[in-house]
Amino acid sequence: MKKIAVLTSGGNAPGMNAAIRAVVRSAVAWGVAVVGVQRGYSGLLEGDLREMDVTSVSGIINRGGTILRTSRCPAFHEAASRARAVEVLTARGIEGLIVIGGSGSSQGAYHLFAETGFPVLVVPSTIDNDVAGCDYSIGFDTAVHTAVECIDKIRDTADSHERIFVIEVMGREAGFLGLETALAGGAEAALLPEFPWDLEELCRKISAWEQRGKRSFIIVVAEGAGSAAEISAHIAAHTGAETRATLLGHLQRGGIPTVDDRILASRTGAAAVQALLEGAKGQTVGVIGREVALTPLDQVCRTKKKPDPELFALVNSLAC
Amino acid sequence: MKKIAVLTSGGNAPGMNAAIRAVVRSAVAWGVAVVGVQRGYSGLLEGDLREMDVTSVSGIINRGGTILRTSRCPAFHEAASRARAVEVLTARGIEGLIVIGGSGSSQGAYHLFAETGFPVLVVPSTIDNDVAGCDYSIGFDTAVHTAVECIDKIRDTADSHERIFVIEVMGREAGFLGLETALAGGAEAALLPEFPWDLEELCRKISAWEQRGKRSFIIVVAEGAGSAAEISAHIAAHTGAETRATLLGHLQRGGIPTVDDRILASRTGAAAVQALLEGAKGQTVGVIGREVALTPLDQVCRTKKKPDPELFALVNSLAC
Amino acid sequence: MKKIAVLTSGGNAPGMNAAIRAVVRSAVAWGVAVVGVQRGYSGLLEGDLREMDVTSVSGIINRGGTILRTSRCPAFHEAASRARAVEVLTARGIEGLIVIGGSGSSQGAYHLFAETGFPVLVVPSTIDNDVAGCDYSIGFDTAVHTAVECIDKIRDTADSHERIFVIEVMGREAGFLGLETALAGGAEAALLPEFPWDLEELCRKISAWEQRGKRSFIIVVAEGAGSAAEISAHIAAHTGAETRATLLGHLQRGGIPTVDDRILASRTGAAAVQALLEGAKGQTVGVIGREVALTPLDQVCRTKKKPDPELFALVNSLAC
Amino acid sequence: MKKIAVLTSGGNAPGMNAAIRAVVRSAVAWGVAVVGVQRGYSGLLEGDLREMDVTSVSGIINRGGTILRTSRCPAFHEAASRARAVEVLTARGIEGLIVIGGSGSSQGAYHLFAETGFPVLVVPSTIDNDVAGCDYSIGFDTAVHTAVECIDKIRDTADSHERIFVIEVMGREAGFLGLETALAGGAEAALLPEFPWDLEELCRKISAWEQRGKRSFIIVVAEGAGSAAEISAHIAAHTGAETRATLLGHLQRGGIPTVDDRILASRTGAAAVQALLEGAKGQTVGVIGREVALTPLDQVCRTKKKPDPELFALVNSLAC
Repeated sequence: MKKIAVLTSGGNAPGMNAAIRAVVRSAVAWGVAVVGVQRGYSGLLEGDLREMDVTSVSGIINRGGTILRTSRCPAFHEAASRARAVEVLTARGIEGLIVIGGSGSSQGAYHLFAETGFPVLVVPSTIDNDVAGCDYSIGFDTAVHTAVECIDKIRDTADSHERIFVIEVMGREAGFLGLETALAGGAEAALLPEFPWDLEELCRKISAWEQRGKRSFIIVVAEGAGSAAEISAHIAAHTGAETRATLLGHLQRGGIPTVDDRILASRTGAAAVQALLEGAKGQTVGVIGREVALTPLDQVCRTKKKPDPELFALVNSLAC
Repeated sequence: MKKIAVLTSGGNAPGMNAAIRAVVRSAVAWGVAVVGVQRGYSGLLEGDLREMDVTSVSGIINRGGTILRTSRCPAFHEAASRARAVEVLTARGIEGLIVIGGSGSSQGAYHLFAETGFPVLVVPSTIDNDVAGCDYSIGFDTAVHTAVECIDKIRDTADSHERIFVIEVMGREAGFLGLETALAGGAEAALLPEFPWDLEELCRKISAWEQRGKRSFIIVVAEGAGSAAEISAHIAAHTGAETRATLLGHLQRGGIPTVDDRILASRTGAAAVQALLEGAKGQTVGVIGREVALTPLDQVCRTKKKPDPELFALVNSLAC
Repeated sequence: MKKIAVLTSGGNAPGMNAAIRAVVRSAVAWGVAVVGVQRGYSGLLEGDLREMDVTSVSGIINRGGTILRTSRCPAFHEAASRARAVEVLTARGIEGLIVIGGSGSSQGAYHLFAETGFPVLVVPSTIDNDVAGCDYSIGFDTAVHTAVECIDKIRDTADSHERIFVIEVMGREAGFLGLETALAGGAEAALLPEFPWDLEELCRKISAWEQRGKRSFIIVVAEGAGSAAEISAHIAAHTGAETRATLLGHLQRGGIPTVDDRILASRTGAAAVQALLEGAKGQTVGVIGREVALTPLDQVCRTKKKPDPELFALVNSLAC
Repeated sequence: MKKIAVLTSGGNAPGMNAAIRAVVRSAVAWGVAVVGVQRGYSGLLEGDLREMDVTSVSGIINRGGTILRTSRCPAFHEAASRARAVEVLTARGIEGLIVIGGSGSSQGAYHLFAETGFPVLVVPSTIDNDVAGCDYSIGFDTAVHTAVECIDKIRDTADSHERIFVIEVMGREAGFLGLETALAGGAEAALLPEFPWDLEELCRKISAWEQRGKRSFIIVVAEGAGSAAEISAHIAAHTGAETRATLLGHLQRGGIPTVDDRILASRTGAAAVQALLEGAKGQTVGVIGREVALTPLDQVCRTKKKPDPELFALVNSLAC
């Protein structure tokens, strides 16, 4: 290969820039030219490309967001668009594509590869961590750190006012973020889409804890499990306690990437370039255990990854 | 005086602990005993007091919240309660009271003093900064830092996705927090209760900026000026841009106090003890300019402090 | 078992408190009493113990340092002291001991177990990560975060003044901290005790980079590989560039534990209690891959863990 | 005026970028062209200038360092160089100059103005705060925050190991940074160049505190008052306590600017442009009390600013 392209797609995630940097610098080290595609699949369809070199990615390892910008691209759900994308790439002499994105972006990449055979690899990056082929996706660690920093602050108010706080974190279909946030935040309970939960039992536990003298509580709810506002109102009505609901919202997507996200992005970005040059295609490049591993995209797209039930049990056993 | 009391009241604010530490350690340095009142005026009415010494306040200068806990106390709106409070204090041999709190707490302190003559001083502490007798109240600086950190993160997403974010910060009746957050966050506009604003004009400015190539915008709204959700919907409808609304919520109240809040709390907490011992009463102990200054509570309660119009103008002139 | 003890030993590390919390709360959940030993093996020899319950560990999951305090205890190198320690424990009815500490503490625990058969387990915790039986020891992740935050700040000055900074991080015999700091900090080079390095070649690379227009450089040196001051002076002399040396020093040991350290500490602290109750002894309780694993202490003490050579190669291939 | 220039000079300080942004955007708002001078007075002498517009300063309000880069320029101590500088400026049609820098840069600006009458204004920016004409210089607040964050971390180790830490902060001739760091860090003592101190008395106080049960101490030393290593050794020798010395070093210069530095930089940068257009020259543009104020450069250069003795007394009265 003489020339490859890289793009970021879907929701932005901290560490995407570190992955772009690793792709560009590795490619240059292998003597391969790199083109950056702007705004994900949308920019690819529009031919919005620019040449990149080692200095294009200077000073970005510690920046949130993505210098290539990103988008959600409904048009890419159609095969005609994907065929058009391959035309754009081949017209510019591009022989391989690295997609940095989450589960929707992996679907797009899978179909593009299945339909055209164009060499594409995915570097998983989403704060939701709801994508197979990796233990953690780039951006997840930073999102948990941000959520836990928020909980550390909210606990000051919970303790000072002797209140119950119900905190809603992102995760429409996945509880990874909610689970690690609850565990590291020392929360009293985690309500997640993957595990059954019983609001009446939670109210009974809260009442029992209050009788024992406990004065403040943090309940973490994943977006996909329920609404903080409703759960907060329910707890207030059934326990008589003073409750507050908080949504962390978009700040979970941004911020300076953590060490782990920077290292994960550096490893998988560099490994994706090497794999592409060695002939790999239609695969996800993730870290599993301590090693970089390739997983076919069809398998990635078929598999639903689940949070570890032992970590979930730990939240409950350490709360008291 | 041989014995004084200290309490924190109203919404918690970062730096309240640093103020408690300064009060206790200064009192001990002057040879005066200190009693901590739990849960603000509520605990005072219930006689929930405990002796404090220099080690009671070790290691708290950098902790958010308040070790004395706090409350909002509707009962204290009645003169009978305030008379009862003085009985509780005098029964324990307490000759002076330092109240660490905001505008509601100052009202309570003013009435208590006006009705009973009991020596009370207020150390202003609220994240809203909506209390006269000081340039800044304890907790405000930390709250602005927290809000600006959030904006720094949200801007990553705004830039990556080319979106408009409308961010609602606390401040039911006061725009101090919104103003400094917008200025330090580099926001494109600040909508505040103290200054008129025109949503149509803002939409026109946004459209003009977009034509010039500007891709992302941050609009800060103070709670008292409007709802982020409504403003966001309006802008989307009138400009065709993609918008998102975010409420920062309770995390603005907590967190490790900034340097400025720790120093302000140390200065005013210590000055309050000295002033009390020198016979001051019925006053607020704040920093005005570079000096500690005493202001009568009746004047504090009558005065509405306003944000600096020059700072407001600066937000607009630096946005483009 | 009816009663167990827990202590922290050796250099303090962020996350030790989260581990203590997990030990205490898990023990209580299993119906077992827990005694906290103050100041590590020193306090054990002096019988400085105190009963702990669920509230003893409230609010500590996010605190640096260790509430049990710690020490280095040369006396514990003697078998007589270790026998004395077992006497102290058994006299109080304590049937098992959990040691939270690093490689020196593991040595002490190994000998105590080998000589007396007393049930002891080690939860590995040291910022150096130089202990086998775990992928990462508690405190390492936070230390890397702290070091990388420092590099992010120093890079501002390096860029503004077009200078070379040589930054020395902790790690007398191990390069783990230096390696991850360099990789996540985007450093141009890492000088580590486990990998050969050539100062002349580094100077040649710097000169070549400077000719290409690169203006600022960050070189990370592990304490055990060399002195920042000497290396800085050498580079200045051989390249003519302006250089500065910085030692990060003790701040690498403290600070709020990261999410990963809190979760690691929660998992291994809880697992240690369960293992002890199930009869395990003389072992280290670490996380390897994604699972908690037990490793015999004699094997832990014989094994020298080494940084991943692929990560080391990555530092060099991404620098340019 | 139709065209002005801006440069940053001397040691870099967080907030310099926010000041550049304010200068550029204000100038554009007034319809005036702006030229950025690279690398301070050195770049000015070499004619290293570039045109700037509103987008040149996008996204820099929260970046440490300076995008214009900076230098120390011994050549500028000579009148011939300063005359050359004015030639460079006038040759490009530049009618006014804004210098963002500290006391050395103010000296240079003063002489340039005195000798040539060229309209120059200074926006004070140095982490040392040792420059008259302002209460605080840009960068000082961030430097104190960084130093206090370090102390918060080091205290974890001091408490865990029951040790005395002597921490050296920057400030060759001025104790501002040491004083506010000690006060906000809750240090037990501050040794500063502007106030006499007695090491024997400090040792006696430490011994008395230790007898009372106090176990850990933080002593802050300003660079200009003494060496942390020597003071640490002296205390160890005279009290028998375990001591450690730490130098914070260059990380005090970098980092994301605090809210206060961003606001100060925005205000003074914008005010400098307005003042220049209104005919001001040979002055410093600082904030004094709550207002922007102009002070003649000759007065600024003659005046030695001193830390507030009341704050110094407060460090001692709150330590115990």
